[in-house]
Amino acid sequence: MKPAKVAIVGFGTIGSGVVRMLLEHQDRIARHAGRPVNLAYVVDKDPQRPRNVSLPPGLFTEDLQRVLDDPEVGVVVELIGGLEPARSIVLKILESGKDVVTANKALLAEHGPELFDRARQLGRSIAFEAAVGGGIPIIAALDECLTANQVQSIHAILNGTSNFILSQMEESDTDYQAALAEAQQCGYAEANPAMDVSGSDAAQKLAILAHLAFGAQVNWRDVPRMGIDLVEAADMRYAKELGYSIKLLAVAEMVPEGLELHVSPTLVRRGTPLAEVRGAYNAIRIVGDAVGRVFFHGLGAGQMPTASAVVADVIDTVLGRMAITFRTLNLWSPEHRARVKARPPAEITGRYYLRFNVDDRPGVVAEIAGILGKYKISIASLLQHETEEDAACVPLMIMTHTAPEGAMLDALAAINVLASVHPGTVRMRVRD
Amino acid sequence: MKPAKVAIVGFGTIGSGVVRMLLEHQDRIARHAGRPVNLAYVVDKDPQRPRNVSLPPGLFTEDLQRVLDDPEVGVVVELIGGLEPARSIVLKILESGKDVVTANKALLAEHGPELFDRARQLGRSIAFEAAVGGGIPIIAALDECLTANQVQSIHAILNGTSNFILSQMEESDTDYQAALAEAQQCGYAEANPAMDVSGSDAAQKLAILAHLAFGAQVNWRDVPRMGIDLVEAADMRYAKELGYSIKLLAVAEMVPEGLELHVSPTLVRRGTPLAEVRGAYNAIRIVGDAVGRVFFHGLGAGQMPTASAVVADVIDTVLGRMAITFRTLNLWSPEHRARVKARPPAEITGRYYLRFNVDDRPGVVAEIAGILGKYKISIASLLQHETEEDAACVPLMIMTHTAPEGAMLDALAAINVLASVHPGTVRMRVRD
Repeated sequence: MKPAKVAIVGFGTIGSGVVRMLLEHQDRIARHAGRPVNLAYVVDKDPQRPRNVSLPPGLFTEDLQRVLDDPEVGVVVELIGGLEPARSIVLKILESGKDVVTANKALLAEHGPELFDRARQLGRSIAFEAAVGGGIPIIAALDECLTANQVQSIHAILNGTSNFILSQMEESDTDYQAALAEAQQCGYAEANPAMDVSGSDAAQKLAILAHLAFGAQVNWRDVPRMGIDLVEAADMRYAKELGYSIKLLAVAEMVPEGLELHVSPTLVRRGTPLAEVRGAYNAIRIVGDAVGRVFFHGLGAGQMPTASAVVADVIDTVLGRMAITFRTLNLWSPEHRARVKARPPAEITGRYYLRFNVDDRPGVVAEIAGILGKYKISIASLLQHETEEDAACVPLMIMTHTAPEGAMLDALAAINVLASVHPGTVRMRVRD
Repeated sequence: MKPAKVAIVGFGTIGSGVVRMLLEHQDRIARHAGRPVNLAYVVDKDPQRPRNVSLPPGLFTEDLQRVLDDPEVGVVVELIGGLEPARSIVLKILESGKDVVTANKALLAEHGPELFDRARQLGRSIAFEAAVGGGIPIIAALDECLTANQVQSIHAILNGTSNFILSQMEESDTDYQAALAEAQQCGYAEANPAMDVSGSDAAQKLAILAHLAFGAQVNWRDVPRMGIDLVEAADMRYAKELGYSIKLLAVAEMVPEGLELHVSPTLVRRGTPLAEVRGAYNAIRIVGDAVGRVFFHGLGAGQMPTASAVVADVIDTVLGRMAITFRTLNLWSPEHRARVKARPPAEITGRYYLRFNVDDRPGVVAEIAGILGKYKISIASLLQHETEEDAACVPLMIMTHTAPEGAMLDALAAINVLASVHPGTVRMRVRD
């Protein structure tokens, strides 16, 4: 059978991993793809950057047009990352009659509707297994394997950087800044870690999963989220005392009132599988009405795990399986009306962990408890340690019973203006 | 689009689950299959058996021929179980030009080569996601998602019955017989549990996974296996003391000398994901050269989890995706030479847990240790509790360092004939 010709646009870390696999494992890939898969072009603006793979002569080019003009190239892998020029390049690839494989979750979360519509109009496909969960086959699970189910909930650790930082804080009893510095040193966090630690990256991935699993049309910006930068070593210790680990949890859950979506550092009961996810790993727990609970765990990022997902998508596209999947999925389609509505964040209920920095004097606890009571938030437990005598303020931890987020925000607004409450109030979710 | 007509042969527990899904979730299934999927026939020999679903009139028939003669039926689900008449029926279905979906791992493990060859000759497909791991999409993971990887190892809990029994023994400190009786009462074990507790069911599933992941041509009967019926409450307690849980582990692992395959009750280090798998759950840990470690966890049996996998296969077959997968897989093909060889069981190395029932008198330990030494098996630790004064014999537990299975069997043969060693020696593997 005639070899399939493939091009890669974006020759960075992931791109180098994909190149390595395509060059080093041709037999294996040909066996699965039913024919040889030949890497024909590697496009990048920078020919000089050091990479851990060497290209055979003639493969590298700075000129995308050569790829677009080659009618034999059927699949192009977009690994530039970011929104532009990735968006324009993907449109050009589709318009030149080629299928796309991408690992770019930001692009999908932002421009999914436009890109998927264009691909459908042109009879092309966009594969994106690598965009969520790295090497964990979570997109295939939702697209193909669990299709007989109505998914009821997704609880997931989708950001390896945050999980690495939180694991470091927990295991070494270090603070956030030290753990972040270590993550950056190990290559698990970027110089500017904002997207990861703010929960934005997880919210983008959650929006994609919610679309696949629930047919929800969610803009990731509307997913309420809290980041891990507010977590202090003290919180880790208190959580531990109470029997919890702290994880950045992305949640999509169907309740009678709609789809609840949120990303938040969350106290997860120790001994449960999600609490035991360590380091840069990701994990996804799905409950379906037929299958029950299914749990996936693996490396959510990194050169080779991501390349593993990208190359599987290339194989799927070459085989023609992706064309079928893409056509049937009808993702982000204007004709495809949202099957569920996201519930307004203020109505989403849950238990909370709160930490206040308060004056160490009588009456403060009563004042705070009074305000919580006024907003009908009842206290499950309260923790205040003895401190050194001259501490200006002391931490006060409160675990609440279930309360709506709206009431919680209102109560916190009222509490935070109290004279006895210092800045730095922390709020996290609790999952038992 | 024209509806797809589907028939089910075998209207037992799983059959009833599949019927329920096809009847109750038509919209959902049509959305994923790209057209309506209509259940046209349900074939069974017994119209009277009580079932938890009621069929619309006209669907039930005792006459398979009606299905075979209906050219509009494209997919037939085989849920009879066992070898015959399942084998003959699957051949008839293929020969009448229809694709097959099955949950019958015994049939595949026994007659895979014949059935897959026939399907290929006739241009038909056989889908079998439900045959291994119940609702866990492990077949799709190996067939489609991890295809860019060379799988390096599979460590799996593949038999829910055994895991339920072992969990019961561990949590309630009961003995094997009591835990088995409870499993039977809860519907987790059959009246004759031999296939499950002997490790045969797990060996059949492991042979299928080894074929998919390594291209190994393995007869499940050649997989060395030990069952869980030898595990006593005392072993559970000792394992716990040493920091382990006991699990029926199915292992396929590439080493330079070949593919090591075995099924054995195994002491698994507590705190690792496999050790934490409880009740009727299954779990599969795969290591791939690119993706690293991926872990899947879910219900490995039961009506609706299995039906979830069966219906996903029906959707895949209706979509035409399965035809592509089946053709490319080239499973159990005579042209498809085995890519790896199974290593002779006697050469497979590993650590062992041994329990001897010995006379409570001086010199016995030295005698046993001497024989182990003769076979170059070194002792990592040794455990003997004080017992009541009048005990006729006492348990002696030994954890060994790594040793080949051949040497271990020879040493045990020599030890078991000692006058001071009573019957009932137990050997399990250890995984740290």
